[in-house]
Amino acid sequence: MLYFEDFAVGQKFASARRRVTAPEMKEFAAAYDPQPFHLDEGAARSSVFSGLAASGWHTAALTMSLLVPSEFRPAGGIVGFGGELSWLKPVRPGDELHVESEILELRASRSRPDHGLVTVRVTTLNQHGEAVQTFTPTLLASRRSL
Amino acid sequence: MLYFEDFAVGQKFASARRRVTAPEMKEFAAAYDPQPFHLDEGAARSSVFSGLAASGWHTAALTMSLLVPSEFRPAGGIVGFGGELSWLKPVRPGDELHVESEILELRASRSRPDHGLVTVRVTTLNQHGEAVQTFTPTLLASRRSL
Repeated sequence: MLYFEDFAVGQKFASARRRVTAPEMKEFAAAYDPQPFHLDEGAARSSVFSGLAASGWHTAALTMSLLVPSEFRPAGGIVGFGGELSWLKPVRPGDELHVESEILELRASRSRPDHGLVTVRVTTLNQHGEAVQTFTPTLLASRRSL
Repeated sequence: MLYFEDFAVGQKFASARRRVTAPEMKEFAAAYDPQPFHLDEGAARSSVFSGLAASGWHTAALTMSLLVPSEFRPAGGIVGFGGELSWLKPVRPGDELHVESEILELRASRSRPDHGLVTVRVTTLNQHGEAVQTFTPTLLASRRSL
């Protein structure tokens, strides 16, 4: 577990890998993003994606599932206010994703003196080393008790 | 279906409402964001959330599930490059969410002359009218064939 004092700008953290299957992509899409190019190979071929692609929200959720058990373990959990989210490339059936996190900025929290703010760039990569998503949230990190 | 030419800055679009239950929150969290404050009422009480709260990614996915069948229907589907995502308030069991979308900016696409770029602010509100999330993506919208 890492407290605010344990973080430094430039630190990097790795994750495990997770393979994405077409059935999982379709199940997520059916529940949360029921658009033809996320649900059906035929409709997807004639779409802007030229083939089945994961919902960006599925990519984001998969990223979180890799981040939570990764080396990046702020004390008190990963609790964010949001940030800039970018989808760079489609995620395809069979892709194997992993996540690389890098600390960009550390700041005191004015409203919560027992916490600090950590800005981290979370990059999601496929098996070819291509970035499919970046997310740059600002997170709340507990300080050590004095 | 709305083509790029049908959009104007300031247009607003409403959605239906969707109620969020504790079991659905926990199921999503178990799959994608297995942190104690999203999974267990007891652990959540002593967390920064002071009670069970939906994963922000669940809120984002629920938002998309409200947006897709809403009045906001770009031709070719809702296809985005990302944008600024902000979580403003926790989503609690029993909350009923709806989405309001407003067109902020319209631009030509340099790389795709058959498409335009639509920047839209998507605000997710609870049953008290409080914004729980905003997302401001830039989307690809088909132009009418000439």
